[in-house]
Amino acid sequence: MTIETLSELLHERKFSALIEALDEINAVDAAEFMATLTDEELPTVFRLLKKDTAAEIFAELSPDLQEQIVKSMSDKELSGVMEELFIDDAVDLLEEMPASMVSRILKTTSPERRHEINRFLKYPEDSVGSIMTSEWVSIYSSLTVEKAVEYIRKTGIDKETVYVIYVTDPRKILVGILELRDLLFAKPEELISDLMQTSIISVQTTDDREVAANAISKYDLLALPVVDSENRLVGIVTVDDAVDVIQEEATADIEMMAAITPTDKPYLQIGVFSTFLSRIPWLLILMLSATFTGIIITHYESALGQMVVLTAFIPLLMNTGGNAGSQTSVTVIRGLSLGELRMGNIFRILWKELRVSILCGLVLSVVVFGKAMLLDRASAEVALIVAVTVLATVVFAKLVGACLPILAKRLGFDPTVMASPFITTIVDAVTLLIYFAVASSVLEL
Amino acid sequence: MTIETLSELLHERKFSALIEALDEINAVDAAEFMATLTDEELPTVFRLLKKDTAAEIFAELSPDLQEQIVKSMSDKELSGVMEELFIDDAVDLLEEMPASMVSRILKTTSPERRHEINRFLKYPEDSVGSIMTSEWVSIYSSLTVEKAVEYIRKTGIDKETVYVIYVTDPRKILVGILELRDLLFAKPEELISDLMQTSIISVQTTDDREVAANAISKYDLLALPVVDSENRLVGIVTVDDAVDVIQEEATADIEMMAAITPTDKPYLQIGVFSTFLSRIPWLLILMLSATFTGIIITHYESALGQMVVLTAFIPLLMNTGGNAGSQTSVTVIRGLSLGELRMGNIFRILWKELRVSILCGLVLSVVVFGKAMLLDRASAEVALIVAVTVLATVVFAKLVGACLPILAKRLGFDPTVMASPFITTIVDAVTLLIYFAVASSVLEL
Repeated sequence: MTIETLSELLHERKFSALIEALDEINAVDAAEFMATLTDEELPTVFRLLKKDTAAEIFAELSPDLQEQIVKSMSDKELSGVMEELFIDDAVDLLEEMPASMVSRILKTTSPERRHEINRFLKYPEDSVGSIMTSEWVSIYSSLTVEKAVEYIRKTGIDKETVYVIYVTDPRKILVGILELRDLLFAKPEELISDLMQTSIISVQTTDDREVAANAISKYDLLALPVVDSENRLVGIVTVDDAVDVIQEEATADIEMMAAITPTDKPYLQIGVFSTFLSRIPWLLILMLSATFTGIIITHYESALGQMVVLTAFIPLLMNTGGNAGSQTSVTVIRGLSLGELRMGNIFRILWKELRVSILCGLVLSVVVFGKAMLLDRASAEVALIVAVTVLATVVFAKLVGACLPILAKRLGFDPTVMASPFITTIVDAVTLLIYFAVASSVLEL
Repeated sequence: MTIETLSELLHERKFSALIEALDEINAVDAAEFMATLTDEELPTVFRLLKKDTAAEIFAELSPDLQEQIVKSMSDKELSGVMEELFIDDAVDLLEEMPASMVSRILKTTSPERRHEINRFLKYPEDSVGSIMTSEWVSIYSSLTVEKAVEYIRKTGIDKETVYVIYVTDPRKILVGILELRDLLFAKPEELISDLMQTSIISVQTTDDREVAANAISKYDLLALPVVDSENRLVGIVTVDDAVDVIQEEATADIEMMAAITPTDKPYLQIGVFSTFLSRIPWLLILMLSATFTGIIITHYESALGQMVVLTAFIPLLMNTGGNAGSQTSVTVIRGLSLGELRMGNIFRILWKELRVSILCGLVLSVVVFGKAMLLDRASAEVALIVAVTVLATVVFAKLVGACLPILAKRLGFDPTVMASPFITTIVDAVTLLIYFAVASSVLEL
């Protein structure tokens, strides 16, 4: 069922066929269809949807379409949609809406739900609390399998997942976990306490959401319990939310590595001015930081006036240093964010990078010596100066590239700010200093 | 239960407590403990494990530990482990083992399993076929819920997931999908044909594995069916494998953007020489491509000899151009790999980048003009030359950065090769040409 087919149904006014189709297809695709509707069609079609389908599709719409629908609804209709939404989708909605809309939405929800939503809204943006949901299935360990299944059938229908079942004691402390498949293959009279896993992997509400996502990825979980400091169950993070976190964090890392302030919207949905704002600060900072290289070159101006041939190798040296440094910094940054590298590994990393950089540096300096002599017809002295500078630069760049991200993390910053452009600026300045120092001593300028 | 506690149990020779603990904790953690054992301890502890726990832990071990264990096992023991492994883990194992080991392992498996493994081994490395598994639950649409549950209880125990159930006809053609939760909340006498979803999202074995991972992420699926050209079900991809694909592909993209040949091992597990090999080709290519900038500078050697002040701005211009270009190329590459951008969007992208680049270029050129005059005490002519070059460079760099990845994709290459270092090389050369052209016309050199 393509968007075109759905549009045809709409334009031929075959509403019941359209509603049936929207009910049948995936909510993500249905939301893509809704985004093609005109301002008049959107609320009309939305009103025709079944209550639960409407909530599912609503959760997948972009914030501006959600706002448009909320505006067109009566308080009663709005209240219906809000009660059907999963708690995390309701919170996401409120985070995107303008303030006046937020208070109207909160007014239409039931007091218990409002209380719950407010609790979620208080968690910091990148915390586990901000992505968890409070709709899980929990049972007591004294139940038999038969009773547990009966209880889940009665209470599980509006829960985000019924496949992972949490065993809590009367104080809500998490004592065990089991999967629905364990119940499926157990005998009816077996006890939950005998079936449940007691070795539990959990996170806290204040942990970084990446910690939760990495745990779900590492242990192949469908859902991860979130507990408070007394080990009481307060929420769960499901694998589909973890997937979103993993993709968003990878995109943010890639953007920061390319000197862009991360945004959480797709490229085509961001306006020209917002895109400009996410890019210009870094371009400015990096441009102004090139002042150092300018000062160094100006300082050696008279020497360069005599030996302009040295100038021709400046881009080659700076690029090679920058590339060598960013290879290392990017590798270390990715290792840190996947949890493969820790601060304790710093000496192992430095020792490895030292050896790799000497290997790379030697190969590059032999090649550049040959190129300078044969291709650029430089003198042996100049070729030697360039070759020595390449070796020293590559070793320096790789060691700096390894240290800075780890240092940044140690100081509590995001290591990603230490990616390529930043490293390049430092490496550029040092490369020139090495170059002119070597040149001065060889040529006695 | 930490690794230290487990080691204590081992050294106090409390084997039954150790085995019980390894059975209780997550297989990933158990594998981390196994990796700390000596060459003698490893096979001994492994032999003590329960058969199904052994297979679970084995699947999480690194290839060299797997090899060590396989070597220490009799054919009979090996055959036991192979039958317990999920098919995708068995295939992964065989892909990592040396050839002599592979034939020994295949000899110990049952003919049906051997046939199935061989089929999987034939799929290309990055295809859906290489990550799918053949252990799913399928039922006929004519069953009642009660009969279906009975059937799943009987056949589902060794399946990779029982939460997504596939409905096929006698020719194995996929006709519907339902979730175990649908069965849980249905009445016993309802028919599968009335409950199942018939609008099915599926992929083919030859699709790129990223297509499957993106579909699972987009539609929040627990598993995705893989069909052949006649819509017969041949496998499923589960969400945990999709998560691995998403993380591996993001890492590979990041590495390629930093001019590193991607590897699929964690940093600390790669040897110095392999790391060197993954980095040196790109450093060499990029260094040699700086020949162009060298030629351009040499060409203007006499002019530069007269105006060494122009040299001082070369690093600033090249860095700014490079950064502006990589901001755009990285954004476009990420959009392409997340499926947010397509080739059809090229004109929309170019039009947006044109406007963003003019905004960025204007701000940067005003700032650099002020900086050149006030901070560097350059003449008004030189400041003007630099400012005009910055504007032209930023616009050029952003348009090239938008075009090249899309062009690469169009030609069937991975757009990621068009990331920062490659763009920088092109932008560097063009920046210098613009700079000297502007300088010549202003200063009449």
